[in-house]
Amino acid sequence: MISKAFAYIDENVHQFTAELQEFLSFPSISGDIVHNTDVRRCATWLKTHFERLGLHSCLIETAGNPIVWALAKGQTSKMLIICGHYDVQPVDPIDKWHSEPFRPMLQNGFIYARGATDDKGQLFAHIKAVESFVKTTGQLPCHVLFLIEGEEESGGTSLHDYIKNHQNELDADAVVISDTTMYGEGVPAVTYGLRGLIAIEVSVKTAEYDLHSGFFGGIAPNPCILLSRLVTECIGPDGKIVIPGFYDNVRPLEEWERRNIDRLQRESKLSKKPPPQQPIGEVSSSTLERLWSQPSFDVNGMIGGHTSKGIKTIIPSFAEAKISLRLVPDQDPSCVADLVKRYLLSNCPDCASLEIQGPCAIAKPILFDVSDPILRAAEEALKQGFEVDPVLIRAGCSIPVVSTFYEHLKTPVVLMGFGLESDGAHAPNERFSISNFICGAKSSASFMSSL
Amino acid sequence: MISKAFAYIDENVHQFTAELQEFLSFPSISGDIVHNTDVRRCATWLKTHFERLGLHSCLIETAGNPIVWALAKGQTSKMLIICGHYDVQPVDPIDKWHSEPFRPMLQNGFIYARGATDDKGQLFAHIKAVESFVKTTGQLPCHVLFLIEGEEESGGTSLHDYIKNHQNELDADAVVISDTTMYGEGVPAVTYGLRGLIAIEVSVKTAEYDLHSGFFGGIAPNPCILLSRLVTECIGPDGKIVIPGFYDNVRPLEEWERRNIDRLQRESKLSKKPPPQQPIGEVSSSTLERLWSQPSFDVNGMIGGHTSKGIKTIIPSFAEAKISLRLVPDQDPSCVADLVKRYLLSNCPDCASLEIQGPCAIAKPILFDVSDPILRAAEEALKQGFEVDPVLIRAGCSIPVVSTFYEHLKTPVVLMGFGLESDGAHAPNERFSISNFICGAKSSASFMSSL
Repeated sequence: MISKAFAYIDENVHQFTAELQEFLSFPSISGDIVHNTDVRRCATWLKTHFERLGLHSCLIETAGNPIVWALAKGQTSKMLIICGHYDVQPVDPIDKWHSEPFRPMLQNGFIYARGATDDKGQLFAHIKAVESFVKTTGQLPCHVLFLIEGEEESGGTSLHDYIKNHQNELDADAVVISDTTMYGEGVPAVTYGLRGLIAIEVSVKTAEYDLHSGFFGGIAPNPCILLSRLVTECIGPDGKIVIPGFYDNVRPLEEWERRNIDRLQRESKLSKKPPPQQPIGEVSSSTLERLWSQPSFDVNGMIGGHTSKGIKTIIPSFAEAKISLRLVPDQDPSCVADLVKRYLLSNCPDCASLEIQGPCAIAKPILFDVSDPILRAAEEALKQGFEVDPVLIRAGCSIPVVSTFYEHLKTPVVLMGFGLESDGAHAPNERFSISNFICGAKSSASFMSSL
Repeated sequence: MISKAFAYIDENVHQFTAELQEFLSFPSISGDIVHNTDVRRCATWLKTHFERLGLHSCLIETAGNPIVWALAKGQTSKMLIICGHYDVQPVDPIDKWHSEPFRPMLQNGFIYARGATDDKGQLFAHIKAVESFVKTTGQLPCHVLFLIEGEEESGGTSLHDYIKNHQNELDADAVVISDTTMYGEGVPAVTYGLRGLIAIEVSVKTAEYDLHSGFFGGIAPNPCILLSRLVTECIGPDGKIVIPGFYDNVRPLEEWERRNIDRLQRESKLSKKPPPQQPIGEVSSSTLERLWSQPSFDVNGMIGGHTSKGIKTIIPSFAEAKISLRLVPDQDPSCVADLVKRYLLSNCPDCASLEIQGPCAIAKPILFDVSDPILRAAEEALKQGFEVDPVLIRAGCSIPVVSTFYEHLKTPVVLMGFGLESDGAHAPNERFSISNFICGAKSSASFMSSL
């Protein structure tokens, strides 16, 4: 049965790629209301695509963008939920793209387009896995329910609400999300941990309007300098976050995890070069250790005063920063947010007023038990699909819906990434490897069989 | 003779105000090329106005905006140069204005418009002083040459070049500039010192494009954080600039200056409240001492990463800051710029590249000898015009052309301000007091008589 499915996948690479190009041509940018219609058109296209494959499908209306629901009946009572998103990131900076973001281009074995790896391409591998059974044996090895949301890139909560409100109908044996990455080229991975996330917005105000720096320079407080100081006081020169109590609940790596990281970094076949030329942080801990098991503090953006061309000798009246933190087990997002907010407020001098908004975009950190049979089955499925032993990894990123599934369905979520970090998710020239697309489809088919 | 002039001024307040309203209605914003035509129309209006008063006037063409040149012959060989600017600052933030910036409005004894105090209104007082002699005695007590530039607010150098190249023709006995302020309401002042200025632009780059903060948070450097640290490291928590060598050439206040400051701050009639609610800096030194005799460091603007609405969990690829410093005697602008640049470069870690542009907008700090007869004459003229004893002050702002005049003409520049700090130069709702306008015109006439 699985061999027929694999053969079908191999025979239909061109067809699958052409369909993926069509899927990728919708500018379904959920973060920009200008694209509201495109988002809905994309959802409708997906529903129609499911129906053509013989699945029951509908658009579940929400307060935001619709969820595409599709069910394929299987020959056992086992149920697999496959979760993904059909919305994409904005395309800025557009001038850095070598091709049109929504005119998918094939080159050197990759498909280039916004959403190629995040998440349309990875999601589509699962859809093609279902098709490989439908078009060969005519029956799936298990029930497969697709829940494809349209608000992942804009922090929407509709899917979370749907899961909470439909707990009983969603009594699945496993949930699969392919929105992470492989460990590296040719090295598939099961991701057993994710970092969490909180985001806040900080605004320092010192005056009602900008002041002349000649009349007031040296006597009036400067909000850009104050904001710089507030940010600087959060992080030590070694990159460690110095907010009191911040690391209290950080769970240390287990012994097997340290060995695993050592092996991944040592074995040249597996080793991937750290992407930034000059990694920051403590020299004593490895890049992977920091990325997977240490929290981080980033300023995502900051602005204050005169930022267009030329000189304006003012003391600005306010300055703002968007700050986000990645959290690790067992840090609690709201406790950490309170720590950060209290620390910033206590460091702000009397000459300024500090306003903090958030936290928003909250995601809990995740850590699954790698001995769970579902995760072992996922490892085996990747081995079948990619014809190579997969590795166990954590990821530095956050997927809020994972903890929602885990808490409400009490099942581990299989994070089976078919993308590569070099695919450029959220960046210009985003791409997805056709080869990983095909191996991904086979892995998905194999996983369905194993349930 | 002077009494006739004074009487003429008093009789023509309405006429003068109406003319000033006309002058203020030109949006002569030199920093915005959209207003190039408006700038030239304003210059032409001014030239025509001079001609109507019987002066020789012409537009001196430059690489930038024209200089309005006008000469009034006097009955002695003495020559006074009056310098000013007919260009104005941009109007941003426009939503904070209570009236149209270029539809001058009269209210409660003030005229509200962009340029009212900086510098059209103050300049116009001198023009009306000339008129008061022309229309009464028919002759001026000295030759008066007007040099009115159109690039003061945009850092242009045309007037500087003109002075350097026409040194011989500009052999004046005194130069007057009214682009400073009075000490406070009802307290006219001769300004005998100005701070200098340098401005630089700093750019921290860490990557070719923005990175995903999940994939790279904690291992990739964050340019907003690095820039914040670089800025913070320039200034101690007490507001003192901690760049090594920075204060080496700062000349201490003389004993009479300390007494003068004490008197100005003590005498309730003279004391003005410090405009920022919570002045920063050393508690030990007074606000006036810091503003007049201490250098300052300000960030005029900074930007990096995602600054529009919502969340974008990126590590930005670069961040930029516009920094300006006010300098005091005997700091040399280019030496200080070198110190600052070297310090920033040496503090930038290897994981980032730092680019520094500038210094531009250079102005040397100024300190005149208050015993110079020209300055004593100016004091006397203000006493006549305002009917109150003036005070001696320094100013925290910078007027680059002052040092150009001083170096090339070897004459002190009389800084005789008719404006108030509360007039809101460079800010929304800029205004100029009609009463100061009239007293200013009388002071100018009186000064012409005294030469």
